[in-house]
This record gives sequence, C-alpha cells and structure tokens, in this order.
Amino acid sequence: MKKIYSSVILIFLTLCIYAEDGHQLWLRNSSPKPVNVVCLKNSPTLTIAKQELQNGWMGEMGTSVNLVIKADKAIRGDGFRISKNTIQANTENGILYGVYELLRRQQTGEAIQEEICNPSYDRRILNHWDNLDGSIERGYAGQSIFWRKGSDSLTITETDKNLWQEYARANASVGINGSVLNNVNASQLMLTNEYLQRVKAIAEVLRPYGIKTYLSVRFSSPAQIGGLKTSDPLNPEVAQWWKDKAKEIYNLIPDFGGFLVKANSEGQPGPQDFGRTHADGANMLADAVKPFGGIVMWRAFVYSASDEDRAKQAYLEFMPFDGQFRDNVIIQVKNGPIDFQPREPFSPLFGAMKKTTVMPELQITQEYLGHSVHLAFLAPMWEEFLQSDTYQNGPGTTVARCTDGSIFPQKYSAIAGVANIGLDANWCGHHFGQSNWYAFGRLAWNSSMKSEQIADEWIKLTFGKTTDNKDDSAIDWNLSFLSPVKQMMLDSREAIVDFMMPLGLHHIFSANGHYGPGPWWAPKGMRKDWTPPYYHQADSLGIGFDRTSSGSNNLSQYKEPLRSEYSDPATCPEAYLLWFHHLPWDYKMKSGRTLWDELCYHYDGGVQQVRRFQQVWDQAERFVDRDRFVHVQRRLRDQSLNALEWKDACLLHFQQFSRKSIPYNLERPMYNLDYLIEKDTKRVGVYQH
Amino acid sequence: MKKIYSSVILIFLTLCIYAEDGHQLWLRNSSPKPVNVVCLKNSPTLTIAKQELQNGWMGEMGTSVNLVIKADKAIRGDGFRISKNTIQANTENGILYGVYELLRRQQTGEAIQEEICNPSYDRRILNHWDNLDGSIERGYAGQSIFWRKGSDSLTITETDKNLWQEYARANASVGINGSVLNNVNASQLMLTNEYLQRVKAIAEVLRPYGIKTYLSVRFSSPAQIGGLKTSDPLNPEVAQWWKDKAKEIYNLIPDFGGFLVKANSEGQPGPQDFGRTHADGANMLADAVKPFGGIVMWRAFVYSASDEDRAKQAYLEFMPFDGQFRDNVIIQVKNGPIDFQPREPFSPLFGAMKKTTVMPELQITQEYLGHSVHLAFLAPMWEEFLQSDTYQNGPGTTVARCTDGSIFPQKYSAIAGVANIGLDANWCGHHFGQSNWYAFGRLAWNSSMKSEQIADEWIKLTFGKTTDNKDDSAIDWNLSFLSPVKQMMLDSREAIVDFMMPLGLHHIFSANGHYGPGPWWAPKGMRKDWTPPYYHQADSLGIGFDRTSSGSNNLSQYKEPLRSEYSDPATCPEAYLLWFHHLPWDYKMKSGRTLWDELCYHYDGGVQQVRRFQQVWDQAERFVDRDRFVHVQRRLRDQSLNALEWKDACLLHFQQFSRKSIPYNLERPMYNLDYLIEKDTKRVGVYQH
Repeated sequence: MKKIYSSVILIFLTLCIYAEDGHQLWLRNSSPKPVNVVCLKNSPTLTIAKQELQNGWMGEMGTSVNLVIKADKAIRGDGFRISKNTIQANTENGILYGVYELLRRQQTGEAIQEEICNPSYDRRILNHWDNLDGSIERGYAGQSIFWRKGSDSLTITETDKNLWQEYARANASVGINGSVLNNVNASQLMLTNEYLQRVKAIAEVLRPYGIKTYLSVRFSSPAQIGGLKTSDPLNPEVAQWWKDKAKEIYNLIPDFGGFLVKANSEGQPGPQDFGRTHADGANMLADAVKPFGGIVMWRAFVYSASDEDRAKQAYLEFMPFDGQFRDNVIIQVKNGPIDFQPREPFSPLFGAMKKTTVMPELQITQEYLGHSVHLAFLAPMWEEFLQSDTYQNGPGTTVARCTDGSIFPQKYSAIAGVANIGLDANWCGHHFGQSNWYAFGRLAWNSSMKSEQIADEWIKLTFGKTTDNKDDSAIDWNLSFLSPVKQMMLDSREAIVDFMMPLGLHHIFSANGHYGPGPWWAPKGMRKDWTPPYYHQADSLGIGFDRTSSGSNNLSQYKEPLRSEYSDPATCPEAYLLWFHHLPWDYKMKSGRTLWDELCYHYDGGVQQVRRFQQVWDQAERFVDRDRFVHVQRRLRDQSLNALEWKDACLLHFQQFSRKSIPYNLERPMYNLDYLIEKDTKRVGVYQH
Repeated sequence: MKKIYSSVILIFLTLCIYAEDGHQLWLRNSSPKPVNVVCLKNSPTLTIAKQELQNGWMGEMGTSVNLVIKADKAIRGDGFRISKNTIQANTENGILYGVYELLRRQQTGEAIQEEICNPSYDRRILNHWDNLDGSIERGYAGQSIFWRKGSDSLTITETDKNLWQEYARANASVGINGSVLNNVNASQLMLTNEYLQRVKAIAEVLRPYGIKTYLSVRFSSPAQIGGLKTSDPLNPEVAQWWKDKAKEIYNLIPDFGGFLVKANSEGQPGPQDFGRTHADGANMLADAVKPFGGIVMWRAFVYSASDEDRAKQAYLEFMPFDGQFRDNVIIQVKNGPIDFQPREPFSPLFGAMKKTTVMPELQITQEYLGHSVHLAFLAPMWEEFLQSDTYQNGPGTTVARCTDGSIFPQKYSAIAGVANIGLDANWCGHHFGQSNWYAFGRLAWNSSMKSEQIADEWIKLTFGKTTDNKDDSAIDWNLSFLSPVKQMMLDSREAIVDFMMPLGLHHIFSANGHYGPGPWWAPKGMRKDWTPPYYHQADSLGIGFDRTSSGSNNLSQYKEPLRSEYSDPATCPEAYLLWFHHLPWDYKMKSGRTLWDELCYHYDGGVQQVRRFQQVWDQAERFVDRDRFVHVQRRLRDQSLNALEWKDACLLHFQQFSRKSIPYNLERPMYNLDYLIEKDTKRVGVYQH
C-alpha cells in the first residue's frame, strides 16, 4: 500500500516538474546556495528581500550579504548601490530592488561590481484595463486577476491573495511600483465602498512589494453614485464629494497613489460636458488628493469626430492649458499621436508641454500587434520611441529626457504601460508576451537600456534553467538557442510592421477587433476617422496621409529641424513616409524601387521573416520543455498564416488603385480579395485563439 | 435614332469580343481565307466538313480542296490521308476528322505533308456520369448538358440542341465518336420511353458529327420498370425483356452504340444478386444488342468489403471468366487497381485477360485531383499509363498495345474517359480543364502522342488568337507565354502528386468529397477500405501498404519481371514505393535521404511548385484576355492554399508516427493539425468553389 502511494507521489512530482505552464515567468531560482543575510532593520519589505536572497542565491556559497538603509545623495528615490555582498539604499524598496538586481546578475552571469542604479522614472505604473465584471478591454490572456463576475465577486480568497502576491513579486523584480487596478473606461461602482474594500485587500498584498495602488475614476461619479445633481467640477458640492471620497480612500489605503482619468474621449464623461476645461477637471481632482500626497494622471487621448486630422487633436486640445495644471497633475500621453499602432512617430505633445508634467503611456498588451497570437517583442519599439529626439530643447531632447525630469522642472516623473496580464496560467497568453511585461519594467527603471540586453536577460531567466537535455553545453545553448531566439525577438516587431502596415501606413485594421486586415473597411455611416481608408488615403494617384503644410499640417506641431526634415519626402525617414505624405505609386524610393514595389517587398518580407522565425523556433525544440515549445510553435504557425492574410489583403486591396503588378519574383498572393473581405464581414470582434 | 442603335450594337459587339468565357474551347477560327471545297458526295457529315473548311481555312488563299471517299486498305476505320489540298478516307467520318486535322495544323503552324492518320482505338467514348435530375456525380462544372430537373425536364429546346451541337463539334474535332449519356450508377427510368425519346433527339444532333450514343443501364430494370418478378439474367423472360428493349431503342436510334453496365459494385444491382456471374449478366445483355451491332461495356470496378486487398479484387473476380464473354462484350477497366488516384500503377487486368476485349477507363473529371479548382493537365498521367509495360506478351506489351487490338485478337477496340463537362460557360469549370477533354480525344485517336505535343497544340488553339496586345511578336509569345505555360501544364500533375500523396501514397482524402486531406479520417463503423489509414498504414515503424508476398501479395497478379522488380524496394520505382511496400521511416532513399525526409521534401516541393505556377501565370497576364486570366489566377491561389493544407495535414499527421522533425531548411507548417481536423469535420462533402 505504501508502495502504491509513493508511486502516485512520484508520478505527481514528475508531472509537476514537466508540466511547464510558464506561470513562474522569469523567476526561476532553483537549488540556491546557502547565504547569510545581515540586515539591522525589520519590516515586511525587508523580510521579502531576505527571503528572496535565501531562496535564490547563486553566488559564492556562504557569503554574508549586508542590506544597509542609509541616506546617500548619489542614490535617488528607490535606487540602490550594489556590490557582490552589499546592497545599500535610501529606502526599503531600494533594498528590495537591489536584491532582485543582484540575483538577476547571478543568474544571467552578468558582472557584479560596485555600482549605483537609479531609476529613470519615479512612478513605474501598470495600467490594467480590467472591468469590474472580470473582463479585460484589449486583454488576450483570460479574465482579470483582480475582478470577477458572480455572486462571490467581492469575496477575497486565499487563491486571490496568492495570485496578487505572485503578481506583486514579478512587478517588484523588474521595478514596477504602481498598479492602476481598473479600466480607464471606468465604472462609477469602482468608488463605492464595497469595491474599495477589495482595493484595500489588494493594496495590502501589493504594499510590501513596494507597489502603490491607483484607480481609474469615472468623472460623472458624483452624480451617478454620490446623489448629486451634477458632476460639474466647478460646483463646490462636487469638489467636496471628491474630497470626501479621497479621504475615504486614504483611510482605507494610506499610501494610495491617486487617480487615472479618461475624460471626454470616446464617449467617457468629462469636464467638457459642463462647459469646463480639461484643466478645470484635472485640477479639481488634484486638489482632492493633494492633502494625502496623491496624483492625478489625466489622459491626453482625446479626439472628436471633427474634420481635423486625428493626429493633431491631442496637441490642439492640451497645449492651450500648458502651465495651468496643478503640480500633482500628470498628463498621460500615448507614445504616438494616433493609438498604439505597430509604428508611430512620437506624439508632438512630448517636449512641447514644457510647464506641465507629461508621462508616456505605452501599451504592453498587443491590441494592434496581433493580440496574444503574434510573437512581438516590444522593447525595440519603446526604445525607438524613448530615444526619439523632439528637439524641443535643442538636439538631444529625447522623449525620455522630456519626461524623466532631467530637462523640465517637474515634481513627479512617471511612465505607464497598459498591462497584458490575465488569469491565463502563463499570465500573458503568449509565453513571449511575458518579455514585454519584463521589458516595460526594465525600461521604466532605466530608459536607456538596450533592447538586446533586455532580451538577453529575459531569455536567460525564462528559458535558461529548463533545457530538457542537461548534457548540452552552455556554448551550444548560447549559439543554438540564445543567439537565434534573441535575434528573432529583436526582429519580431519589425516583421509585424512589414506584414501589417509598413512605410508609415497605420490603422488599417478591420473593425474594432484591431486584429485582422481591413484596408477596405468602411461601413456606411461609420465615423470617417474610425475607418482605414481615412488613414491610408489610397487612390489612383497614390497612397498615404498628407500631414505636411499642403495637407493637415500636423507637421507644424513638430519642432524644427524635424518639421522640415519630415516635410520633405526625400529626407523623411521611410519608416514614416506614408504617415506624413501622400505619394504617387511610382514615387522613387531610396532602394531605387517604386513605392508600389517597395510596399510589395515589405509585405512579402514580413511573411518570409515570420517563416524564418518558425524555423528558428522549430530548431530550438531540444532546448525548451515540450509545453512551452508547442505553445509557441502553434502561435507562430497562426502568425505565419496571419502574415499571409495581411499581405494578400493589403496588396490586393491597394492594387485596385495602383493597377500595378506585384513584382514577379515575389511569392504570389494565395487568397482572393473577395474571400478575405467576405471572411472579414463574418469575423467577430476579437480573434478567439 | 439610327445612330443610337448602331452605338448600342457596337457596344454589344465589343462586349461579345471581350467577354471571354472560354465557351469556344479550342475552336477559334477567325477571319478565314477563301477556299474552294470539292466533294462529289453529299450528306449531313460532309456538309459539316465543307462548312468547317470554309469557316476556318487558313491555308493558301483560293486553294481547291478535294474531299475523297475511296476504299484504301492503308487507311483503317475512320482514318484518313491528308495533304495540303486533299483529304481521303474510307468513311464520311474519316473525311470530317481529316478536315479538323488539316485546320488544326494550319492554325498551329504544324507541317502538312501527305500522311495517313489512323485511330488507335475504334471506339473513343466519353462517359457522362450525369443523373436524370441534371446533377453530375463527380462533376465540377455545373449541371448536365443532357438532363435537367423540373416539369419541363424532357422538353427539347433550341438551346438544348445548339449546346449539343457545340458539344458534338468539339468532340468530333478531337476524334471522340461515342457518348454514354448517363451515370453508371444508372436510374431504371433511363430505359423508359419518355427518356428514350430525349436520347433519340440527342442522337440526332450527335450523329452528323460521327458520334454514337450509348446508355448506362441498371441491371434490375426488368423488375423495376418491366413488371417482371426478377432481373435474373438466366430467366428467359428477363432475356426477352432486354431483347425487346434493345429493339425499341434501335427503332428510335438505328446507330445506337450499346450499353455500359456497373453491376454488383458499390450497391448497384447485378447478376450476383441472383447467384449468377458477371459473364452470365454481360452475355445476356450482349445477346440482346448483338442483332443490331451493339456492344456491352461491362465495368470491372467491383470490390466488396472483404479482408482482401482492394487492389486485388477486380483481378480475382474477372480472371476466372476470361474467354467466357461474348465477342461484343468489352470489360471496361479503370487505369489503376484502386480508383483514379493522382498516381496508380496500371491495373493487373491489362494484358492478363487475353481472351476478352478489355478497354481502359480514364477519368477526365478531376475527382481526385482537385476538382475544377486545381490546374492539372492529365495527359502525362495517361501517357504514363498507356506506355506502361505489362510484359504480358513479352517486353513491349504496353497497356496501349494490350487494348488497341495490335496484340490480342479482338473484334472491337475502345477507350473511355469520364467526362468533365457541364453547363458552365467554359464547359469544364477550370479553363485548363478543357485541355483534358482535348487530351483524352487526342490520345484516344493516337495513343502514342506525347503530352508535350498535346499541350502545345491546345495552348496554341486556345490562347493563340486572343492576345490583347497585337504588337507582341510571335517570338515573344512563344518564349514568354507558350513555353512557360506549357511547362506548367506538363509539371502540373506531378505537383499535385507531390503535395497530395507522393511516393505511392494513395486515397488519403477526407470523406467522400475526395478533395481535401484526411489521412486521419476513419469514422467509427466505416468500412475499413473506405478510410485513409487502410491505405497509408502509417504506424510507429513506418508507412505504406505491403502488397508483396509478405503482405497482400497483390504483386502476384503482375507478370515477371515486374513482379520481382516491384517486390524489391531497391528496384521498385520510388513513385510506387509506398503503394507496394510498408517501409521504416528511416529507410534510405535513392537521394540518400531517409523516407521521412524524402516525404517532407516531396510535400514541400509540391507547395513550392504551385507557387511557381502562380508566378508563371501572373507573368502571362499580358497575353491573356482579362476574364480567363483572372479565372485561372483565382484558382491557382486556391490551389496554392490547398497545397499548403495538404502538406501540413499529411506531414503533421504522419509526424505523430514518425516522431521526426521536418528538415529544418524546409518551410514550416502554417496550420495546426487539430485545426485542420476540426475544419475537416465541418467540411461538407464536395468543395464548393
């Protein structure tokens, strides 16, 4: 009988070892060596720091590690100083970040010498677009980890708390220190006491990991749940209601971070409903949280169905108020002027708002990059964005420097990323989606990090310890796995740009699912600026959106010399060419090809690139556990077919205008256009994998 | 007013010229030169011959052409002697065939010197699998041209007669001289007087073009429509009923050709239902039509759900009766022993039945080769078959010589092709499907014709006269159109073999639609020999059907030295390898690759080949009218996707047994196996284009 039991246990353990669902993310310490941790203080955060060292130490056996909290002007905020056996910081959080840094370096084999690591941004925040019913807007990894449907939706279980803790630990390990727990399209119920009780519980789990909790709020809450007749921000009762609400929240959550607001955008209520301005609205809320040290993040993602170029609108609406916002208001600006496209130039608001704190909003969830089906490592996109030179304060005024406080005087610095996290065992839907969560944290901490370094770390941490074949030498692993897989990650975003919307094309998706191609998509009566033809402007003469002075003059919002450089097709980077210009089909490109041919080459190149990714991954099979191997292999197949569909849909649609042949040496379309259009009309909102 | 009319007429004419629906087939004489035709006799057939010359003469202007009917022993049957200005024949039909030959040579630019052309087979017959309700079994080009549904189904209209005449002309132009008007799965109603009246009308239109009419008959007709209690062939009343029926038919159609019978096969009634033999049944019918010069074509396509290898059964059932059939019975044998697969070895009955007339049955309609979606020129398949050496009378006993009367004494010689003709404007669904109708006729007339020659003729006749750009020189056309398109045709069948079932694999289709891949397809309770696993026999050890002496010993039905050659995998042609052998996955092929790798290379090669066809066709655009160009382009795209699906389905299915990687330099699968299986379960019978 005993024998049977132990067999069962053996089988169970074997299953546990081999059932690799990716839930551990990049945190895979195994068989740590003994370490002696010395820390004079005690606190929940420091306890975590000590435990992490003890559970993950891979340095010299028996080392004594000192954790030292000591004021040091060279160390900023939650920064730290590390060496092989000491971590020094101004704050407990700094110690924790130092611990994770030390362990990461041990695991990846990176050199550890005495070094100070300071964060680029003070506030490194995940925005969860989680609805209170558990669904997630633009979420492709299952339901919310914070909210759920049903009669027990507000019951707090041990499972909930364990998951929140795992989430908090993962965030802390990459330096993320803030979480907005609900969708920017916010429900007024968020601010009712029963939901705030749940927020309190979440905040308690997150707090020891150095993570502040924030909430998205609905601007009309005073009228909707406060019993007031209005939500007019200049109405004293309304202001008082928000003050009382803030007090109530801070009573529950003393370190509450503040509010995130989407106002007067895509149907959300806002101050304009009462004839007031964004400044009126934001400042009223800022005053409510100010006594408690809270901030208001006010989104600049606003646009109306006007005739104006959508790319211009945020700038037009917000620039007039520069300098009129309270010092605890931060304007949260999406990286590009449209909406998280595979490639956009930076939004002209960056660097332009000189008297207002501006924070970048990135999107980690792949709303426009193939959801959780496509392999897209986004660090290169964010690196491109952060290093873009706005010239607003002379050369070198990169977006990163415009927003991290190093140029403009500002009380806060912050960066946000829209999370790709859900209840899926692997958190992000696609195993490689985890790399974007990781990369967001790393770049928020250090905005000058290179994508290559981030990918290198992530692969080593995520796949380094789990090769099935323990006899493969490290050299083999480096050459045959790390190197090609890293290159695949680094190339992955550009491949998507190529097969979806190269050369500056943008927003040519079908319908609101933002997944498949729909360059033709323009249902009757639909707002023009919600349809692809508005964006690609293809006609018999050419293709592209004229944003020069002969067109919408969006370029007037950019600083010289960018304005001139981008205004001339000859000097405009080809990656943005059709973003800023409407050009003839036979426009001569730098390659010597016509624009039409170049478009064909990009689309085809994207398809071929995905096929190469498939080859890379299939060849990596012996280095990866079966579960994750198959998971990624399956999605790469889907991506490969999607790439084909994108290429055929776009080229065959545009060909109706260009009336030119696809260069004959390129692989021919496999789909007929009418089939794709018919399939499109049958497509339901979001792709279900 | 007149002006408006003439404008309308002009527009109408323009539309007629440019709306190219392919209805004219390979018969596209335009602007003939004057010719003087001298013929001493007069008849409907000779009138047609004269008109064709006058409408299509492209020889020297004003030539006098003599049509001479004169007995000449060098000329056999409906053969003829041609020169530049004389056509001589024993029969009126011979004159007509000579006229078409002369015109074809003028149009294709082939040399015309004095020459005798004799037919290989006396009876060159199309089998129409047309049902009396207008549907066509395995037809992919619309409804029947002979039968239709509805209350007016038996009304004979001018439209009917015009279409039948066009059909007859097309047949005569390639030497086809017989049509079986209804499905071998025959309705008993076929022999009722009202349907026979329609047959009479059809026969009257076909007759001047030298075409005899035949009917498929249902063996149980005497009981079903004759009021008899049985259809036992040895029952005198039954025999008398058939004699009376024959007389009735010959009264209506004096030159009626005879009966085609599918008996005791796939549920059809037959003599075995009454404990009688195939010989009993066939001979009884043969006696009925004998007085009128009729023949009985008795199909050897019979197999039961026995444990025996299906490939063996026709031989086992028919060989015992060799020599027992009447001299006006012909055993109609499908080219291969299974069922019109993309590649089969020849049926072992060819050459084995030495005392019985045997006729080959080919399939023109692409039941197993992608319906009317795939571009498949079948002449290479038929050439391969006709030139196969059976060794039954020593080396050189090709299938062609076994069946054309040159080796075995036989009263008749015949060949049949299952037609691919329907009401579609272009007759065959796919424009290139016409080439198979053409090729069947040409090979039936001259079984030693080369596929290359047939393709050359067909392209010149079908596409030669209609280039949009009249300035393209003939050299350009030859180099840039004729040559690549011909090569595409010649390679097309092998491409299909490669992406569907290479190396001797066969019948791994999904369900009864015989279109998409279904190597997994084996519904519970389904007859084993109707499921792909029965045919591919894939398991962990290997793949293929063992038909050697260690397996089903189907090879014992073949003559030496073939039997020995095919029994040894080392000498068995690799094209038939898995037809005759079950071999290990790592069996070493002639290329040096393992069997598994070779299989992968073939599947991938097929996919790549179809992509090359797409390139060839797209580059041909300037030489083809828009309608036919787009039609073929669309189908090649579908074929390209189908090829991908076949490759992925088969490789991923077989990979479950081989447990080997697809060679890494090959393009990876794009479909996931479970998706394809799920799609398959939703597939409805036949693909609807």
